[in-house]
Amino acid sequence: MPRVSQRGDQMPASPIRRLVPMAVKAMNRGVKVYRLNIGQPDVPTPPAALEALHRIDRKVLEYSPSDGLLSLREKMCGYYAGLGIDVSVDDIIVTTGGSEAVLFGFMSCFDPGDEVIMPEPTYANYMAFAMSAGAKVVPVMSKIDDGFRLPPVEEFEKLITPRTKGILICNPNNPTGYIYTEEEMLKIRDLVRRHDLFLFSDEVYREFCYTGATCMSAMQLPGIEENVIMIDSVSKRYNECGIRIGAIVTRNKSVRAAVMKFCQARLSPPLIGQIVAEASIDTPEEYMRATFNEYVERRNFLIERINEIPGCFTPMPMGAFYTVARLPVDDADTFCRWCLEKFEYEGQTVFMAPASGFYSVPGMGKQEVRIAYVLEKEELAKAMKVLEKALEAYPGRIPQYS
Amino acid sequence: MPRVSQRGDQMPASPIRRLVPMAVKAMNRGVKVYRLNIGQPDVPTPPAALEALHRIDRKVLEYSPSDGLLSLREKMCGYYAGLGIDVSVDDIIVTTGGSEAVLFGFMSCFDPGDEVIMPEPTYANYMAFAMSAGAKVVPVMSKIDDGFRLPPVEEFEKLITPRTKGILICNPNNPTGYIYTEEEMLKIRDLVRRHDLFLFSDEVYREFCYTGATCMSAMQLPGIEENVIMIDSVSKRYNECGIRIGAIVTRNKSVRAAVMKFCQARLSPPLIGQIVAEASIDTPEEYMRATFNEYVERRNFLIERINEIPGCFTPMPMGAFYTVARLPVDDADTFCRWCLEKFEYEGQTVFMAPASGFYSVPGMGKQEVRIAYVLEKEELAKAMKVLEKALEAYPGRIPQYS
Repeated sequence: MPRVSQRGDQMPASPIRRLVPMAVKAMNRGVKVYRLNIGQPDVPTPPAALEALHRIDRKVLEYSPSDGLLSLREKMCGYYAGLGIDVSVDDIIVTTGGSEAVLFGFMSCFDPGDEVIMPEPTYANYMAFAMSAGAKVVPVMSKIDDGFRLPPVEEFEKLITPRTKGILICNPNNPTGYIYTEEEMLKIRDLVRRHDLFLFSDEVYREFCYTGATCMSAMQLPGIEENVIMIDSVSKRYNECGIRIGAIVTRNKSVRAAVMKFCQARLSPPLIGQIVAEASIDTPEEYMRATFNEYVERRNFLIERINEIPGCFTPMPMGAFYTVARLPVDDADTFCRWCLEKFEYEGQTVFMAPASGFYSVPGMGKQEVRIAYVLEKEELAKAMKVLEKALEAYPGRIPQYS
Repeated sequence: MPRVSQRGDQMPASPIRRLVPMAVKAMNRGVKVYRLNIGQPDVPTPPAALEALHRIDRKVLEYSPSDGLLSLREKMCGYYAGLGIDVSVDDIIVTTGGSEAVLFGFMSCFDPGDEVIMPEPTYANYMAFAMSAGAKVVPVMSKIDDGFRLPPVEEFEKLITPRTKGILICNPNNPTGYIYTEEEMLKIRDLVRRHDLFLFSDEVYREFCYTGATCMSAMQLPGIEENVIMIDSVSKRYNECGIRIGAIVTRNKSVRAAVMKFCQARLSPPLIGQIVAEASIDTPEEYMRATFNEYVERRNFLIERINEIPGCFTPMPMGAFYTVARLPVDDADTFCRWCLEKFEYEGQTVFMAPASGFYSVPGMGKQEVRIAYVLEKEELAKAMKVLEKALEAYPGRIPQYS
């Protein structure tokens, strides 16, 4: 029997999705599972988006252009202009979710052995895409006790080698909720310019900044216009993760030319998703505001509640809809699995993502989980009760941190 | 300014799509462009598929499972059973088009430097996906004057090295329309077994076999159950290329485990497309038969017409809806571009795919184009008139072949 590739063998399994089969088994046993593992909000998709779906009257569901429908890219330009990001339709390539934007961006910019520096914990799938491209992830550690703030830029600079080709930031951050200050962004800019690196900036959570400060886009950093590659997606903004529409946005023409070759090879992004995404951009301010307020309330509730549970700690996330929490357990991987396979409280259990998969360094995040606050408050309250009970019952509980 | 990766630089531009900007410019000049470059049929999507689209009443367009909706995989099992292909839902992973199935399959099976043997001319994007995985394409040449029949299996065997990891066939073949005989399939089976290789078999055109013979699936070859990886897609079968739903089907558990890690990293295939695909599988026999008959008529007309044009030759394709034709031109790349940029006949021109991009060897296919018979007969007739006039006017015309 032929063997799978080393790449296929060594590829990390997704910390967000690899426990799904155990969750399905629990549900099949009749257990109610609170799904806090994935950024799949329960908030309804905007009515205008659903109406656009029902209004489609095409006779042939045909391929679309490899870079996406022009009408969608025009709408996106208007949306970006409203944020103070000045780009043309040519700067935007529509992708199959933000995921494909990262994959094709990495493929286009990194050769095997090239290094990309990322603050960790980091969105786990970046590591999978880096491995797909053969690039090496070089982590800069941010710490839970510091509220996951960006390490000083000097820490980044120490890691630069002749193979360093890029830096990746996710802002607001998944999984930590951290938002970079303008000062931090300018320091990153200086570093990127000094070493002539690519700066990948994943900004899919930009609408979810709870601190009052605006989240600065890397596309607004002067002097590195040709270095910045922005990753975007409509999934989180309009609660339509399933349509798989994202974008890679860059003013760098060579990068766009390379990315387009990967895009042409896969022919098209999904047609129907593009039609839905285009309609979504017209979503009224009230919907956006209501969604925002809902997340603020969930966040405030969740963070306070987690910190009340003996031995647990999580900092207050500034944005996105995740938090990384430290739990008093020997191994969060084992604990998350145990919750699905061995535990239930009044017929319920919790599904969380072990944070170890959000670090490239083995052993890191061993006591941490990522919790997505994508359920309504009442559900979150019940889920936290279950978590508290699970921690009381878990055989691998360890003495709590100071 | 940082430079794109070598991979991004060397990646071949798609012969099917790279001339699209010139075609768009021609259309913007008011020229009617006959689009024979891409397998985008004008045949309507089945009514049941469009009805399913309009019937969607979900409130949240959410992520689906990484391996696809269970209900879709169940329907697919039934469809395969009807073809005599015995697989379970676990053997099927739904992908974002057949394209993603090839990419993730290659990523999971081939490491940089591994070799995959393919009969050429071959579907251009396989080469792009091989390059994405770092694998080397090793061609076995099939020739237009032999009707592109499979070279003797001995020719394959001569090319096997310690780095050979797989063979890829596309059956019925894109771009040649060739269909492998049972004898040829069994010879490939023996070779695969003897050298313990992966056999990738792209069977997306299986409904389009015009010779009366059934097209044998690689999944039906006894003795290599763990070696075969079938690529599938609903795009061509149901004329819904834009929904981007395909599948990778294999009984090899290790391959599925590796593929799933890439699938989890990109989260989900498109939700709406899966709902449409599921409904499509119920398409009545009459629709399939009418579509089939339509293609037979187009094929018969097109092949006869091409062979009437002085200096042109194309063999009769046995399946799919493409043919590779030899034209009396110095360079088909230049000619195809010239048709879009410099030529028009009564306000019309033709858009064909230069065949050089369907060969990995430079210089091959220089007089050949791929023509997709995806337009109705009257349109094909007009397009061929334009091609004839273009060949008369083209400055790079060469004396015709004997």
